[in-house]
Amino acid sequence: MPATGLTTTKTRYSFTDDYSEGAHPDVLNALLLNNNTQEVGYGRDTYSEAARDLIRHHLGRDNVGVFFVPSGTSANAISIAACLRPHEAVIACSSGHIVTRETGAVESSGHKIINVAPKDGKLTPETLTKALDDNWHFPHMARPRLVYISNATEIGTIYTKAELAALKRLCEENGLLLFADGARIGAALTSSMNDMTLRDMLELTDIFWIGGTKNGALLGEAVVVKDPKLAEDFEFFVKQHGSLLAKGRVMGVQFAELFREDDSLYFKLARRANLAAEKLSHSIIGAGYQLKAKTETNQVFAVLPLALIQALQQEFSFYVWERYGEFAVVRLLTTWATDLTQLERFNQMVLSWTPETEQKTP
Amino acid sequence: MPATGLTTTKTRYSFTDDYSEGAHPDVLNALLLNNNTQEVGYGRDTYSEAARDLIRHHLGRDNVGVFFVPSGTSANAISIAACLRPHEAVIACSSGHIVTRETGAVESSGHKIINVAPKDGKLTPETLTKALDDNWHFPHMARPRLVYISNATEIGTIYTKAELAALKRLCEENGLLLFADGARIGAALTSSMNDMTLRDMLELTDIFWIGGTKNGALLGEAVVVKDPKLAEDFEFFVKQHGSLLAKGRVMGVQFAELFREDDSLYFKLARRANLAAEKLSHSIIGAGYQLKAKTETNQVFAVLPLALIQALQQEFSFYVWERYGEFAVVRLLTTWATDLTQLERFNQMVLSWTPETEQKTP
Amino acid sequence: MPATGLTTTKTRYSFTDDYSEGAHPDVLNALLLNNNTQEVGYGRDTYSEAARDLIRHHLGRDNVGVFFVPSGTSANAISIAACLRPHEAVIACSSGHIVTRETGAVESSGHKIINVAPKDGKLTPETLTKALDDNWHFPHMARPRLVYISNATEIGTIYTKAELAALKRLCEENGLLLFADGARIGAALTSSMNDMTLRDMLELTDIFWIGGTKNGALLGEAVVVKDPKLAEDFEFFVKQHGSLLAKGRVMGVQFAELFREDDSLYFKLARRANLAAEKLSHSIIGAGYQLKAKTETNQVFAVLPLALIQALQQEFSFYVWERYGEFAVVRLLTTWATDLTQLERFNQMVLSWTPETEQKTP
Amino acid sequence: MPATGLTTTKTRYSFTDDYSEGAHPDVLNALLLNNNTQEVGYGRDTYSEAARDLIRHHLGRDNVGVFFVPSGTSANAISIAACLRPHEAVIACSSGHIVTRETGAVESSGHKIINVAPKDGKLTPETLTKALDDNWHFPHMARPRLVYISNATEIGTIYTKAELAALKRLCEENGLLLFADGARIGAALTSSMNDMTLRDMLELTDIFWIGGTKNGALLGEAVVVKDPKLAEDFEFFVKQHGSLLAKGRVMGVQFAELFREDDSLYFKLARRANLAAEKLSHSIIGAGYQLKAKTETNQVFAVLPLALIQALQQEFSFYVWERYGEFAVVRLLTTWATDLTQLERFNQMVLSWTPETEQKTP
Repeated sequence: MPATGLTTTKTRYSFTDDYSEGAHPDVLNALLLNNNTQEVGYGRDTYSEAARDLIRHHLGRDNVGVFFVPSGTSANAISIAACLRPHEAVIACSSGHIVTRETGAVESSGHKIINVAPKDGKLTPETLTKALDDNWHFPHMARPRLVYISNATEIGTIYTKAELAALKRLCEENGLLLFADGARIGAALTSSMNDMTLRDMLELTDIFWIGGTKNGALLGEAVVVKDPKLAEDFEFFVKQHGSLLAKGRVMGVQFAELFREDDSLYFKLARRANLAAEKLSHSIIGAGYQLKAKTETNQVFAVLPLALIQALQQEFSFYVWERYGEFAVVRLLTTWATDLTQLERFNQMVLSWTPETEQKTP
Repeated sequence: MPATGLTTTKTRYSFTDDYSEGAHPDVLNALLLNNNTQEVGYGRDTYSEAARDLIRHHLGRDNVGVFFVPSGTSANAISIAACLRPHEAVIACSSGHIVTRETGAVESSGHKIINVAPKDGKLTPETLTKALDDNWHFPHMARPRLVYISNATEIGTIYTKAELAALKRLCEENGLLLFADGARIGAALTSSMNDMTLRDMLELTDIFWIGGTKNGALLGEAVVVKDPKLAEDFEFFVKQHGSLLAKGRVMGVQFAELFREDDSLYFKLARRANLAAEKLSHSIIGAGYQLKAKTETNQVFAVLPLALIQALQQEFSFYVWERYGEFAVVRLLTTWATDLTQLERFNQMVLSWTPETEQKTP
Repeated sequence: MPATGLTTTKTRYSFTDDYSEGAHPDVLNALLLNNNTQEVGYGRDTYSEAARDLIRHHLGRDNVGVFFVPSGTSANAISIAACLRPHEAVIACSSGHIVTRETGAVESSGHKIINVAPKDGKLTPETLTKALDDNWHFPHMARPRLVYISNATEIGTIYTKAELAALKRLCEENGLLLFADGARIGAALTSSMNDMTLRDMLELTDIFWIGGTKNGALLGEAVVVKDPKLAEDFEFFVKQHGSLLAKGRVMGVQFAELFREDDSLYFKLARRANLAAEKLSHSIIGAGYQLKAKTETNQVFAVLPLALIQALQQEFSFYVWERYGEFAVVRLLTTWATDLTQLERFNQMVLSWTPETEQKTP
Repeated sequence: MPATGLTTTKTRYSFTDDYSEGAHPDVLNALLLNNNTQEVGYGRDTYSEAARDLIRHHLGRDNVGVFFVPSGTSANAISIAACLRPHEAVIACSSGHIVTRETGAVESSGHKIINVAPKDGKLTPETLTKALDDNWHFPHMARPRLVYISNATEIGTIYTKAELAALKRLCEENGLLLFADGARIGAALTSSMNDMTLRDMLELTDIFWIGGTKNGALLGEAVVVKDPKLAEDFEFFVKQHGSLLAKGRVMGVQFAELFREDDSLYFKLARRANLAAEKLSHSIIGAGYQLKAKTETNQVFAVLPLALIQALQQEFSFYVWERYGEFAVVRLLTTWATDLTQLERFNQMVLSWTPETEQKTP
């Protein structure tokens, strides 16, 4: 029966996350068109090579390592394992995905994460300096060697070029590598507040990844490793972590499609997601409600009355983040696939809602 | 350019492995048809639930855990990590995939593999007993707790029901769990020499997996966990190993398609692969050459003259396994996608080849 | 030359730590007296068995596991590894020794430490509850399974029986094991503010250890495992972590001596350390200075003028912890071996010091 | 009661192992004499520094790292962890201590051990070459990076200088580090068949250790790290593995005593052990029995009739290794502490035994 197009049980329209749908049609079409050729396995296929070259072209540099892995958690765990020796630690915001949502994958590879308090979801030179000041007592403490950031962050904020450059400088002064989780790097680099390019990301980090799963692909993240020395053995780590797919073409074809054009599909899709989030935000503000944080990418954190939330939940699904008395923060995510008609319907409900409306709901 | 159907550089037809092509068209079509619905993430989607139910239906049992992971190495590493405590070891043939081709993934999760010599690629009650006899000096030795086998094995042989039952009995007598790597379980269970079903595999092991990658899927393996207690926390391991895909639907849709019918596409494809291998074998024997081992599944190990091998390599790609004087063992793999015209062409070359033929080649 | 009694270069008397001297003479004498018998290796010797029985006698219970390991870090890492499966986490104060001074040993065994803010160096039901509330999103988060505390804590404070009982109750309600680091359990249980016994420690935890290194032994910690099921395989962990000494007698003889009497040498030594700390504290307060924290065990945290600190440092060595303007917190540790004449000399310097005194120093 | 000299239950004289007794009296005396000084912790004490210098003096080189750890398993696990990255493997004989008697400690640090068949307990250039030939398929195989040998081996044989030099050369040609487990290096280097010195061991390996536990110390092994770069971070590994003792002096004092003289106590004790083994061997051969292997160090493997073994076991304890019909191989270990009167008594029983004697035993 699935082949005939299963009707999903998800009847409420979802703003829950940015991986609710499948792939962008062009990406799926590329898989279809390139399905039948015979290819060498384990990422040495024509498509993966092409995708690597296209990404290098976008990065403006030839000699960087590009590695495809199936998930964000594997991208993070593999990158960190490849950068650190057993007694070296990674510094991250306590809100970082590796700290809060990866089931201890980094620790399961043996590495300590030194937590610092985030500011707007971000690491700052001040908090990084404090972490270094606190972790000096060698060999009783693991030695800080890597800094983990996310761009966009877990709450949708982004790093400016100046902010990232300041972190990078501090890292260099202290013998630290800088690693950026790019699960939502598309959204970050197409934010209306962004002043960076992929090339800047390469310049200002040592290793970062370009998330496919949350921006048009069925699956797959592309890890970019700047130092050829570090790239040399990287594939061993991909394999050891179970992430070297026999049919590497599956990720190669998709990334090749996403980065085929100079004005890439990848960034077009991200822009679309951000635009949808902007519409949501405007409408919420227009209706007189507040945002918990300025919307910079495709995540909207809105403070709404509980009664309105309840009404919205009849029609839409989304996360309720934190409650404050009669209000709560809700998280709304948009993607390239967000249905603008549904978004408009959501906005209308917000705009037209009054406590009286509420009293009518059972 | 990839979207327009990249011409592959692989001009020689390949019998190198069973993951050279993409997915079976029906599987790809299912992905296409089910692409646009909104689904819950991380394997709780409609398709994954359906696929789990279909697999349980084929297994004839409701309460088994079914978990989708992206690769064989992840299936093995996760299963073993979930079964063992840190001081417990897994026993495996020295030819086992976890020993020879997974970059120490099992050890990277902290576990010792106790090696035993294979007989026809298989573990036997005798060799297992010896391994137990040799590993008794506790706590100085890691305690054997899990037995790893592959069906089909790495050299294409299969376990009979009696053989597997004997191993299972011995395991039970010694407090050992039995785990079967099913990367090629399709080929095994459709072998002309097979006397087992999926239900027997469930009955006679504690945990095993059904390989999708090598039998019709783009990617994905389905791990079947018999003991509900062991299944309970299994998803933590999947996540910690970076194998819980946000778009779990990608594997769900494919496995649902592969197991949709009672006479499943999965086994149809495997039968087709075995049949192609049988044709190859017959032809090779017919031409007066020997097989290194009886062909039981989709792997053919043929002993051919070096000169013939060289001639074949002009037209076809395949592994040269081991050299013996003027002969060598070559490994030829077939799949559901094997082009029978190419196979016929290969057979013709083998049949018509004479040392004189050779002298004509440059 | 060492055999003739090396003159140490440490000319200033040290209050730096509680492991500056060797063993208590009675302990060393026991090693001497029992040196020549032949014994079975790896902790099955007569002395280790006797020491285990003596400790069980002090605990008032026969069927608890007692395991000797050479260091505090090994005691912690082994205990935590034995309690947790790979996807389970330990909750600890961010000031905990496992977080701050063990080079990521816990993480190197694969486990995440969930940090909570300490109150007076201690974990409270409130902070524990918050940690549980924050770590619920399974399987994306590691599951809390163990709670780590230290008694005495890293800043010398101790848990009252009521405090520990409240934690234990909360642990039981939430399926958590409670583990106490007892590097300074002697000091804790002989504190003037203490209302617990070793038996209470056993009752109110699942696993804890009795530190020898900091209280009279050359080396060695005794890990007490309440649950016989958990104790069953514990020795495998001791061995795997390199902590099962061939001459287990070395630790057995020492612990047997420390716990030989009902009024044990172990607690006598700890009392002596606490008394010395009390004297230091009184004298510091008497001289008009403040303590950073009430002295509960053998650690004194005093707030002294920088000039006085400088003067003291000519004669004594100790840690300067934190600076506040013209003052700093110094940490002074006492032990059973603290030379009371030196302590008196220290006190006199503090009492007689005036800014004028200072001006006389070059 | 232990303080008054516990009477051991071990009434039969033991040739079971070489760690049945405590320390050599001179070593114990050194601990006594140096017990009361105040010392800096964690191996920075005067005695450890002196011991390091003395060992460097014996090695004839200043800039080598010397690290004290409490056990052989920790020496091996730490050394291997410090040498390897996660995807790198160690090659060892299947009879190696790390393979057979360390509870998977190496694997628990994440590393694969590639097993090769031993020849007389030793690794040879041929078997090493084969291991390299078999492990080439990167990144699917872990990359061989370290070679582990034991000298003396687990069956008491030793490497000649030529044998070790050949291995070292092969290692260098293949980018491999060479690591020697020296639990019984004293016995090896004082064997009558030995042609190497400590300096040769340093020259012909990259890292090796000098075992104290089995040769006069209460506990402790000294790991010698030739490459200053590798030595740089080595202490982090010692600490992370729980092997950095707070009272590092305990090992420092002992090793300083063992290596104080140019004609060191260490080698004197080892010579004594070897001599005792020689006496045992001569006597066994003289009585008309065979040795399973030529006695090269302090391990004797004798093939004795079962009835004689049974008679001996009334008076002595030792391992029965393997049975062959009416005979069995027994392992007899000698040490510096072996009581020559007991040894003589053992020899007499062997010499005077006849089947008739046996019939008199009940």
